[in-house]
Amino acid sequence: MFQSFEVTARPEQGPPRLVALRDEMSKDALDGFLIPRADAHQGEYVAPCDERLAWVTGFTGSAGFCAALRDIAGVFIDGRYRTQVKSQVAADYTPVPWPDVSLGTWLEEKLPNGGIVGFDPWLHSAGQIETLEKALVKTGVTMRAHENLVDRIWHDRPAPPLAPAKIHPLEFAGESHDSKRARIAEELREDDHKAALITLPDALCWLLNIRGADIPRNPIAQGFAILHDNGAVDLFMEASKLVELGDHLGSDVKVHPPSDLVSAVDDLTGPVRVDKGTIPFVLSETLGDRAVFAGDPCALPKARKNDAEIAGAAAAHLRDGAAIVELLAWLDAQPIATVRETQVVSKLEAFRRNDNALQDISFETIAGSGPNGAIMHYRVTDETDSLLQDGQLIVLDSGGQYLDGTTDITRTIPIGTPPKDAAEAFTRVLQGMIAMSRLRWPEGLAGRDIEAIGRMPLWLAGQDFDHGLGHGVGAFLSVHEGPQRLSRISHVPLEVGMILSNEPGYYREGAFGIRIENLIVAQIAPELPGADTHRKMLNWRTLTFAPIDVRLIVTDMLTQTERAWLNTYHAEVAEKIGPRLSPAAKTWLDTATAPI
Amino acid sequence: MFQSFEVTARPEQGPPRLVALRDEMSKDALDGFLIPRADAHQGEYVAPCDERLAWVTGFTGSAGFCAALRDIAGVFIDGRYRTQVKSQVAADYTPVPWPDVSLGTWLEEKLPNGGIVGFDPWLHSAGQIETLEKALVKTGVTMRAHENLVDRIWHDRPAPPLAPAKIHPLEFAGESHDSKRARIAEELREDDHKAALITLPDALCWLLNIRGADIPRNPIAQGFAILHDNGAVDLFMEASKLVELGDHLGSDVKVHPPSDLVSAVDDLTGPVRVDKGTIPFVLSETLGDRAVFAGDPCALPKARKNDAEIAGAAAAHLRDGAAIVELLAWLDAQPIATVRETQVVSKLEAFRRNDNALQDISFETIAGSGPNGAIMHYRVTDETDSLLQDGQLIVLDSGGQYLDGTTDITRTIPIGTPPKDAAEAFTRVLQGMIAMSRLRWPEGLAGRDIEAIGRMPLWLAGQDFDHGLGHGVGAFLSVHEGPQRLSRISHVPLEVGMILSNEPGYYREGAFGIRIENLIVAQIAPELPGADTHRKMLNWRTLTFAPIDVRLIVTDMLTQTERAWLNTYHAEVAEKIGPRLSPAAKTWLDTATAPI
Repeated sequence: MFQSFEVTARPEQGPPRLVALRDEMSKDALDGFLIPRADAHQGEYVAPCDERLAWVTGFTGSAGFCAALRDIAGVFIDGRYRTQVKSQVAADYTPVPWPDVSLGTWLEEKLPNGGIVGFDPWLHSAGQIETLEKALVKTGVTMRAHENLVDRIWHDRPAPPLAPAKIHPLEFAGESHDSKRARIAEELREDDHKAALITLPDALCWLLNIRGADIPRNPIAQGFAILHDNGAVDLFMEASKLVELGDHLGSDVKVHPPSDLVSAVDDLTGPVRVDKGTIPFVLSETLGDRAVFAGDPCALPKARKNDAEIAGAAAAHLRDGAAIVELLAWLDAQPIATVRETQVVSKLEAFRRNDNALQDISFETIAGSGPNGAIMHYRVTDETDSLLQDGQLIVLDSGGQYLDGTTDITRTIPIGTPPKDAAEAFTRVLQGMIAMSRLRWPEGLAGRDIEAIGRMPLWLAGQDFDHGLGHGVGAFLSVHEGPQRLSRISHVPLEVGMILSNEPGYYREGAFGIRIENLIVAQIAPELPGADTHRKMLNWRTLTFAPIDVRLIVTDMLTQTERAWLNTYHAEVAEKIGPRLSPAAKTWLDTATAPI
Repeated sequence: MFQSFEVTARPEQGPPRLVALRDEMSKDALDGFLIPRADAHQGEYVAPCDERLAWVTGFTGSAGFCAALRDIAGVFIDGRYRTQVKSQVAADYTPVPWPDVSLGTWLEEKLPNGGIVGFDPWLHSAGQIETLEKALVKTGVTMRAHENLVDRIWHDRPAPPLAPAKIHPLEFAGESHDSKRARIAEELREDDHKAALITLPDALCWLLNIRGADIPRNPIAQGFAILHDNGAVDLFMEASKLVELGDHLGSDVKVHPPSDLVSAVDDLTGPVRVDKGTIPFVLSETLGDRAVFAGDPCALPKARKNDAEIAGAAAAHLRDGAAIVELLAWLDAQPIATVRETQVVSKLEAFRRNDNALQDISFETIAGSGPNGAIMHYRVTDETDSLLQDGQLIVLDSGGQYLDGTTDITRTIPIGTPPKDAAEAFTRVLQGMIAMSRLRWPEGLAGRDIEAIGRMPLWLAGQDFDHGLGHGVGAFLSVHEGPQRLSRISHVPLEVGMILSNEPGYYREGAFGIRIENLIVAQIAPELPGADTHRKMLNWRTLTFAPIDVRLIVTDMLTQTERAWLNTYHAEVAEKIGPRLSPAAKTWLDTATAPI
């Protein structure tokens, strides 16, 4: 089983580690030290050896950092984790609401007489340090790149991952790495950049058509690369990880030990393109004036999925949809108040595993029943595990990693008879989800230009939800992929081939949560009679096929158009998923997808 | 009659004036000279003495400029005016599509060996010149502030306007100018600004509770002011314009001749707040390092209408709505193909004048029938005047200036039997207009966050329109007022009291135009059962009351909710406007507002 329900937070182990850390700070004459959640690749998941924040503080959230000073240790966490942090860290740590309180402001206040704060220059991006130094410019606080003090005291720190990288076949990638390297190199030449640093593993894996298993949930191989303007690549990765690749990389990709990276970067001439938000500080310092901050050149090409990747995603979604339907049918067959959240998670993973194609789950399944459903990033543990009871909803947000694609789907299911207000809110969430699914929009618009469409039904009832409408999704890569987003803060134009989630929700604290999520891919909108002929428009193709629970729908609230959309969608679900099911699940699906 | 149908463009007068201008350029060793549309106050309308662009080129659009060089004279016009410019300027002038081609790029191309381009430093903002100089930094072209060469050759140039300013009564303003000055001064002190320059006449008139008649359509008195951080004001305006004000301005407002402005600005100490986008270049140069670019401090307070201003706007709209209904009833009574566009305009102005409260129209009425309706900024002249024929639509966009408020309304009316595709497009435009009217949204959102709501019904049919959904509107001030806009480019949060237009449209070139426009004002949304209690939400109150032509509605396309909105709106129109009408119009209105 990929997912575990272990309680990994042990508040009591934090304080002695903080003491040890402060001893090292004293020895090195530092007044503070930063412990970020991130590794050198700034991803959402990190390897066990990079779980420094959890090891020192006990806090296991996917974002946040600790600023340990001599007499106070702030744990900076965003809105999602304000409750969780309280149960995970000991009293020696002080939770700080972030980004409401910035690190700069906090350091200025806690170090009124100034001081030196150390940080590991591999774990912070150039942009982060620049922002921090700007905020501290009029204070007596200075930042100093320094050996990682956590690593010095973490005696049983796990070794870095060395999972073998594998070839991502052309059948799924749709384009050779020769071709990818050549067209990005051409872009570099156009911009007069001599090279680009690739520091994000998903960009690297996309570029070279490889995948790996260095960290959980994301099938990436960790490493760094220099892409030269002639298309040649210097790859910095342990050679032992590459044995299974054979001659896949070819002669234009030279492999070097990771320890050679800094000197190789130092040897580069001319403008080198880097992404300010993700390049480790140590590398931008090494480049100095040679660094040109212009974003990762792989980001947009990777986001625009090609035909093979879209076909792969569609295939993966059918496989994944069948597992979801098996789970939904199973759940429905259980008597009320006999199933626990952990059972739902285990059972779902088992159904996904029944198909041997499953490589991993794409993130820790969220199975939040009743009040737990209102915790947006709820991860069930043996301690929080709850029984699904009559009148509750359960939010089930999960996904799979398959060689041909990454899935992410949320369904909300009623246990017994749902409360009226929950059904009304569910119907509004569904209306927003349908509105976005049906949308057609003029080319050139970004997520922020259309996101309101998915919120409007809730707004009209005085309701809303506090997360974005959708995120980008990779092709057998990270389930959260930029730069495309359906979000008020995303100004990246939506382009053909971009895969995003469409996941409006509604959360009533202490009561219930609702979320409905399909993945959708942008395409050229089919022609319509009477449409403006001079206007190029895009629309969505839905990738996810699984029924939406009609028992939670207040049918009268839907327009004819919305009903028609739902009935058409359900007919497609029955047609595409039905043949893949067990007989019991097939029978269940026929009922679940009957027209309303 | 305020509006005239005179053809003011005489292409043949342009060439000799260009010759004269080039003679002056030679004498002063300039290689070019810029002739903007704007006056020193950067408004949309200008006084006759400031119509330099029209005088030199013949082009009468509300935006654009001419760059006259020794051997080419570019007339830069945006998308709205590409057709109009062709009929208005002689062959000696070259239309340039702007902003597709920037002035910097054009100058670089046309002056490959470099040169000196003169400009009047009163007529260009600091921001404009900064942008231009940045674009020219690697070229041999330099910009030079210079005496206005157009004024030198324009021997019969009209005198500057000297219309008497009038008190804007507290009853309509809702706040004394003492109070306004005091609260803006407080903001200046908070920001450590010693003073602010007020260069926009509508800001100045709002601040001092005065109105004027210096330019057509906008009831403003032209002038400049320095607002000090103690609330005192130095007002630079001809004293002869102020005699009717009596002691309205009081002792804290000192009046100076306009000619003293530059030396007074030069005498200012400390940081002086100015708006980079509108401050005349000459004034920011005078201030040098003392200028702080932080926007006009009156802009947001002016945009947030107080209760008296909102009540005034509502009252003005009832008066104005009655005139609109009289016109619609009259038009409907005329046999098909007997009415010309100019008659519609004249008749409408006459109905507005029947109520003695009309001070001016708020802009030139747009009355575009058939293909003319597809020209978004169509102004009918004796030459373009067309007969309204069977099967055509007429777009009628007009407004009035009343002491208590400014109106702006568009209705689209069918003549005889409308074509099916026009009715379908009209219905979609109406659906977008209703969707925005009904919207409720979380506080803090800007126009760009919600504008899509008003376009979605058209998008779903592959259609769209190429203007913003709405603009801000003043309180007996400019009908186009910033900073609030319902536009993809507006990031200014919408606040309680802001008045905007809600005017989706659809235009089929060579065939027809459609636009439906109501003014709406943002308010705290009334409480709703089941709404999120922790979420502050806003909604719109509609100010405009006039029927929407149901003969253009394809009823089956509307949802029940949309029909209900329309029927409720029409019932309100009948109730509020009915009692103000002639018997014939009242009878007509009862039919026009019957439920569908």
